[in-house]
Amino acid sequence: MKLGFLSAIVPDLSLEEVLTFAGREGFECVELACWPVGKAQRRYAGVTHLDVAAFTADDAARVNELCAKTGVAISGLGYYPNPLSPDAAEAQVAIAHIKKLIDAAALLGINQMNTFIGRDWRLSVDENWPRFLEVWPPLVQYAEDRDVRIGIENCPMFFTDDEWPGGKNLAHSPAIWRRMFEAIPSKSLGLNYDPSHFVWQMMDYVQVLREFGERIYHVHAKDARLDRERLNEVGILANPNDYHTPKLPGLGDIDWGRFFSVLTDVGYDGPVAIEVEDRAYEGALERRKAAIIQSGRYLRQFVN
Amino acid sequence: MKLGFLSAIVPDLSLEEVLTFAGREGFECVELACWPVGKAQRRYAGVTHLDVAAFTADDAARVNELCAKTGVAISGLGYYPNPLSPDAAEAQVAIAHIKKLIDAAALLGINQMNTFIGRDWRLSVDENWPRFLEVWPPLVQYAEDRDVRIGIENCPMFFTDDEWPGGKNLAHSPAIWRRMFEAIPSKSLGLNYDPSHFVWQMMDYVQVLREFGERIYHVHAKDARLDRERLNEVGILANPNDYHTPKLPGLGDIDWGRFFSVLTDVGYDGPVAIEVEDRAYEGALERRKAAIIQSGRYLRQFVN
Amino acid sequence: MKLGFLSAIVPDLSLEEVLTFAGREGFECVELACWPVGKAQRRYAGVTHLDVAAFTADDAARVNELCAKTGVAISGLGYYPNPLSPDAAEAQVAIAHIKKLIDAAALLGINQMNTFIGRDWRLSVDENWPRFLEVWPPLVQYAEDRDVRIGIENCPMFFTDDEWPGGKNLAHSPAIWRRMFEAIPSKSLGLNYDPSHFVWQMMDYVQVLREFGERIYHVHAKDARLDRERLNEVGILANPNDYHTPKLPGLGDIDWGRFFSVLTDVGYDGPVAIEVEDRAYEGALERRKAAIIQSGRYLRQFVN
Amino acid sequence: MKLGFLSAIVPDLSLEEVLTFAGREGFECVELACWPVGKAQRRYAGVTHLDVAAFTADDAARVNELCAKTGVAISGLGYYPNPLSPDAAEAQVAIAHIKKLIDAAALLGINQMNTFIGRDWRLSVDENWPRFLEVWPPLVQYAEDRDVRIGIENCPMFFTDDEWPGGKNLAHSPAIWRRMFEAIPSKSLGLNYDPSHFVWQMMDYVQVLREFGERIYHVHAKDARLDRERLNEVGILANPNDYHTPKLPGLGDIDWGRFFSVLTDVGYDGPVAIEVEDRAYEGALERRKAAIIQSGRYLRQFVN
Amino acid sequence: MKLGFLSAIVPDLSLEEVLTFAGREGFECVELACWPVGKAQRRYAGVTHLDVAAFTADDAARVNELCAKTGVAISGLGYYPNPLSPDAAEAQVAIAHIKKLIDAAALLGINQMNTFIGRDWRLSVDENWPRFLEVWPPLVQYAEDRDVRIGIENCPMFFTDDEWPGGKNLAHSPAIWRRMFEAIPSKSLGLNYDPSHFVWQMMDYVQVLREFGERIYHVHAKDARLDRERLNEVGILANPNDYHTPKLPGLGDIDWGRFFSVLTDVGYDGPVAIEVEDRAYEGALERRKAAIIQSGRYLRQFVN
Amino acid sequence: MKLGFLSAIVPDLSLEEVLTFAGREGFECVELACWPVGKAQRRYAGVTHLDVAAFTADDAARVNELCAKTGVAISGLGYYPNPLSPDAAEAQVAIAHIKKLIDAAALLGINQMNTFIGRDWRLSVDENWPRFLEVWPPLVQYAEDRDVRIGIENCPMFFTDDEWPGGKNLAHSPAIWRRMFEAIPSKSLGLNYDPSHFVWQMMDYVQVLREFGERIYHVHAKDARLDRERLNEVGILANPNDYHTPKLPGLGDIDWGRFFSVLTDVGYDGPVAIEVEDRAYEGALERRKAAIIQSGRYLRQFVN
Repeated sequence: MKLGFLSAIVPDLSLEEVLTFAGREGFECVELACWPVGKAQRRYAGVTHLDVAAFTADDAARVNELCAKTGVAISGLGYYPNPLSPDAAEAQVAIAHIKKLIDAAALLGINQMNTFIGRDWRLSVDENWPRFLEVWPPLVQYAEDRDVRIGIENCPMFFTDDEWPGGKNLAHSPAIWRRMFEAIPSKSLGLNYDPSHFVWQMMDYVQVLREFGERIYHVHAKDARLDRERLNEVGILANPNDYHTPKLPGLGDIDWGRFFSVLTDVGYDGPVAIEVEDRAYEGALERRKAAIIQSGRYLRQFVN
Repeated sequence: MKLGFLSAIVPDLSLEEVLTFAGREGFECVELACWPVGKAQRRYAGVTHLDVAAFTADDAARVNELCAKTGVAISGLGYYPNPLSPDAAEAQVAIAHIKKLIDAAALLGINQMNTFIGRDWRLSVDENWPRFLEVWPPLVQYAEDRDVRIGIENCPMFFTDDEWPGGKNLAHSPAIWRRMFEAIPSKSLGLNYDPSHFVWQMMDYVQVLREFGERIYHVHAKDARLDRERLNEVGILANPNDYHTPKLPGLGDIDWGRFFSVLTDVGYDGPVAIEVEDRAYEGALERRKAAIIQSGRYLRQFVN
Repeated sequence: MKLGFLSAIVPDLSLEEVLTFAGREGFECVELACWPVGKAQRRYAGVTHLDVAAFTADDAARVNELCAKTGVAISGLGYYPNPLSPDAAEAQVAIAHIKKLIDAAALLGINQMNTFIGRDWRLSVDENWPRFLEVWPPLVQYAEDRDVRIGIENCPMFFTDDEWPGGKNLAHSPAIWRRMFEAIPSKSLGLNYDPSHFVWQMMDYVQVLREFGERIYHVHAKDARLDRERLNEVGILANPNDYHTPKLPGLGDIDWGRFFSVLTDVGYDGPVAIEVEDRAYEGALERRKAAIIQSGRYLRQFVN
Repeated sequence: MKLGFLSAIVPDLSLEEVLTFAGREGFECVELACWPVGKAQRRYAGVTHLDVAAFTADDAARVNELCAKTGVAISGLGYYPNPLSPDAAEAQVAIAHIKKLIDAAALLGINQMNTFIGRDWRLSVDENWPRFLEVWPPLVQYAEDRDVRIGIENCPMFFTDDEWPGGKNLAHSPAIWRRMFEAIPSKSLGLNYDPSHFVWQMMDYVQVLREFGERIYHVHAKDARLDRERLNEVGILANPNDYHTPKLPGLGDIDWGRFFSVLTDVGYDGPVAIEVEDRAYEGALERRKAAIIQSGRYLRQFVN
Repeated sequence: MKLGFLSAIVPDLSLEEVLTFAGREGFECVELACWPVGKAQRRYAGVTHLDVAAFTADDAARVNELCAKTGVAISGLGYYPNPLSPDAAEAQVAIAHIKKLIDAAALLGINQMNTFIGRDWRLSVDENWPRFLEVWPPLVQYAEDRDVRIGIENCPMFFTDDEWPGGKNLAHSPAIWRRMFEAIPSKSLGLNYDPSHFVWQMMDYVQVLREFGERIYHVHAKDARLDRERLNEVGILANPNDYHTPKLPGLGDIDWGRFFSVLTDVGYDGPVAIEVEDRAYEGALERRKAAIIQSGRYLRQFVN
Repeated sequence: MKLGFLSAIVPDLSLEEVLTFAGREGFECVELACWPVGKAQRRYAGVTHLDVAAFTADDAARVNELCAKTGVAISGLGYYPNPLSPDAAEAQVAIAHIKKLIDAAALLGINQMNTFIGRDWRLSVDENWPRFLEVWPPLVQYAEDRDVRIGIENCPMFFTDDEWPGGKNLAHSPAIWRRMFEAIPSKSLGLNYDPSHFVWQMMDYVQVLREFGERIYHVHAKDARLDRERLNEVGILANPNDYHTPKLPGLGDIDWGRFFSVLTDVGYDGPVAIEVEDRAYEGALERRKAAIIQSGRYLRQFVN
């Protein structure tokens, strides 16, 4: 596998600084945050390390040169919006920008971009399905035509009242993945699998690898801790942030040895991108960098 | 404690038959189903063993005589509707009928009735709160005036798409109870505590007894089994019936020894009413009776 | 379900005494030991409560009368030999006698007999398979023709050096059952399922019920205790008796609540026959009877 | 085994009432409280169902007649003082009265009495040892001469500040038993084993049966619950009552199935006396009787 | 956080050698052993890396220069005596020397010193309390006046017969801390928290961080292993060394990921000093140095 | 301890390349694969990094020079054949070649060689014993005469049908070791202990260290994962490869912290040789080297 990180946590670094930092600290790759240039609407979003809006072959060459110089590959382009937003304009921006990432990934020759399916969070999965069937087949076809793979992250995007009750991304469980892959069998659609989202959903984040291993195109390494004393107060019908805490790898409930044990057995050999969303490690740039370095050190026990 | 059962599972028996059966099988009490006469709108509802609509002192005397004859007490009157339904008419029926149960409980001298808080299931807890503050203080006052205690069952009333996403009863967690009792401190408001609802909400159903022991006025003995292999498919954001199964006491995940260990320590000495909602034991009357008998035999290990 | 016991543990009682004892102690059924008259070759075998060798319709009528009188049904006829023994004569006796049990079961109208597949214990499963395919299809056809169901017990029949290394009954795991039912799809072939054999084979004795529930025609209730301190000395390559101990239900590692929880859900409503093989409860007849009674009392928590 | 109870919990019943109650409720035996007539100095002590001070053969005959009439045996005579008390007078009373129990046990032909070793609770085990060697060999010889067995209960007799830091009975761990039996090999010295004391001492109450099975002459069936939330506050250096709670069998942490599983295997077939020290079940006589009955019902699952 | 070690394990190194070794191996800080010059009275005590007896501003400047040169900070000055010793002279020495450490810490500008509360080990907590109230308020005032924080280590200082039964340091449980901080609310009194002492006291070493996080001024990283097979012999009333073994971090029962997960969440960002008391790693200087290095490597997974 | 690896996984490297790689990656030692030159008969066998067939003092000097140059010691010579093979010729080759390793170990002054006892896999342990008593005493004497220690690996050498049912190495359990050491008390016979083989044999791989610590002369660090979902299908009577998977250290079920915790306590200070048999890490040389490096990084947490 190739160990790296998602660049969204260091918005204060330029692309070159990101790659240089990664190379100096021994990472093999970075997933580049590619939000549209502008203001972030939520934490960990709105970062632009690569502006794909008007990305050209020349831009691609320059970026690839930087990669060669620093010895760091781009594991994928990342942009996590809500393409099924009930706000039609927001959805349209998301869809259009996803295409830009696909184009850029193709130009860069890395053929991997990561995103969300999206969801109208006030509607049930079934109620969202028609819209899914409208939006996603053409998007996947667009990617397939350019030989790019889409990695859908399995985050429910449900944290607080703002996303109650369904969250902003349909693709959060194996049952839904199965339905999704049956509707769109193209190999251009796969997963950017993050085991931490299964922790608070109380699902087995290891056994699932056996069935979906071939569809896992990218991995996020984040951890999460169930806070039992908080859960005992509110139960699972409460907002997820009321009973769990995102943490750095090694500081949560995931048994990473068990995770990589089966991940290696199902033949995964792709990128593992550390995603820092641990509030105890936010703040100054040095602290966030230290968080990435510590996470890398932890994961190197299991990843070569 | 006094062991008994909720009569809703045997709608085909008359009141006298219910009490006779209870007495013959060694139960000390029965919680009587007191829905308005008419057609049930959901499973386990709509049963009328006592028609409280026009209940008189004479009726009370006749019922108490039956109790004396069979040696079986009435642990409480039970009616579990949605008094906060977004359908104003439905809510009104519920509120009015709850008052009838309070009246009847007072007439019978048993001073205990059990019900739900209700909820507009499409709205969040916060969004329901104003309506709760409107409906419940006068209801509790009504009960307090008649020296009757209301036992709110802690069932979320969320099973399938029909109650998505919030369920039809607000009172499902300690955090919400605390808020409820702060708003209405009257001792006429308490709990009809059923530990099984905490099983799939992933909460500690024992430790909670220490804080709320004094507010527990009635206990439902039902069990529930988490089905991990189903949960692994769908996660906790799915409908509860997709990952758990209600079962008879002893056939679910509840550690009843641990439960009664602390329940006795906090001084609870009231009724324990078996509630049969195990589909494997429904069907013919004999099978449902056998389910009650088996449940009683199981619980007698822990209850004298 | 119907609770009863396998009569092999009380060879000193006559058929009438067995049924009378069963009835008096509240059991609904008995599985009758039907070995050929003669000397037992191993513990718990060689008992003849029903001599099926020359069993007539008149005999059947007499037996059924006894059942009616005592209020106790026959859950099945039981005979557990090695029909695939490398000793051709022994195998032939077994096969011929199994047919006698089928005949008798048909005559009695109980249409259930229980037995083993057998095995040449010195050969692997694969090496035994041709012989299985020779012996069993005609036997099952014989049963199907008489509308009798065969319940194969899942005991590996491997205890000590005498059965090393493979045991004397092929049908000990789900993988082998699947292969067996593929080879012989007839509904006349099913299982007499005993969860205790899965304890020392380290298999999940509950989850398996979901796949094979429809093939379970009879259940044996025996328990087993893994003796970790002995297992730590010898490991699982040792003889099973070196690291486990058969015990009465409730005195072993089986979680009977969990077992019956799923067994009821998959729709099983047949016999549950206590099988006493706990050496601490052998010896005098009174002690063995007490073992049956205690086991029944324990299981009645979960079985009505 | 023979199920019964220690009579200390019903001081308000006469000997005849105790035996009659035991017989009516299906118990096979009772351990009789035999404190000197007078005032109790601590909870559960000071009860005199048999006054052994001037016990004669005639008294014995009368008692045995009562036993025959009620069908209830005496499992042993019980008196639990501190024969190694630093108060020489108190120790002397204890020693002299223990001899009276031995005499009475011999006269009754039951040859079993149960007591404590005692301890100067302010001194360490080693510091108590010389006194143990002085007091106990003659006492055991006295019993051996009369063919009576002494069952030492393994209670540390340490609850609160009053017994800090060592408790009032040396014989609380296998390490000390071993030392004790090495000093006094006579078979007249054995154990009255109560697994509940091992719960809060954090010891395996089952595995120990394998080594000491032959020395177990009597069993007390009491349960105990570790209160983790209290233990987290004070730790094991606090007084035991600060972090655990004695409970009825089935309401504590003991796995009774596992306990009786091994107890039967090591050949124990003696008395099992329920000891009620659960404060939730004290109070009125009826409640204490109900506690005994409930405990018996619970244990009958495992004891015939 | 800043990773370092307590220098007591390398008494054979000079202060400069200690700091040089720390710097070369990548440690950010060291807690300096500051016992009075002289002979150690117990293992791990009596080491003097900084002689605070006559410490001057010039001395402080020299030491701070060494720190600057090696890039290693002093996390605190450490001296762990018994200021409540029943030996008045010993107590007096301890109290006087603690003041010297406070003075030196102030001079050095590190404003942190670590020590014990002490205890008359033959007396109960309550019996020690008056003496605590006499000795500690003035000591804390002395520190507060110099803007120095005192970190009390939570070690019970109870190992063998020599400290039986209470140990030589009162501050071993949250219940006692609470009492302590109520008596002395000054922020100059806090904790030098070592989770290993909670292991054998059977307390939750993580949950406690939530309440006392703000009072934790220093952390010791030591591990401990409960030896169940030894505990089963003697129980928790035995001396702690009879059933547990101090080990290097990663070789004991502590779940360090869980520990640092919550420690980071409560905002702790201070020193983490490895304390080597693992007898398997004592002996030659190289072995002790290797123990520190290995511990550091282990902890770096969780600490940046 | 000294961390290294078994060279069999890198057959494509020359001895010098092996030692150079080891030195560069910070390993202190290597166990050299010393099969006879020729073709491997099974996976991981047949590798010859040292041809001991005609090994001379000059050869030894050259090898020791290489060791000195690279700073890497030889932890032992390894050759794992079947000296008790039913094929007499194969057994003879094995025995003769083991002697060559003993000679070479003596010449090299490393006095450690590792091998198997062997077994006729079709026969029981008892049936193999006479042959063991014939072959091994002279072999051990041969080693003792040359002051060389033999480390027997505890691998059952049972994977698939080819080794059914007993495997090709008797020495797989503590019970058998005890019997082996009783028969041959010479200190020249000891163990090359690999905890992974105890994982699927369901034995405690830590507690055993206490009894056999002094006989452990060499340690293999390999890991193994029980695959419960596969085990549930086939049970422990199936071939071991049907329910477990060998993995790199840290990717299996072994708790290495607990392992090294006790290993250090029993005084082991010898070599720990990583053995790579994880199929997910085989293939290209670079991948296998990376597997060794990752395993080393993982183990360095616990080994200095």
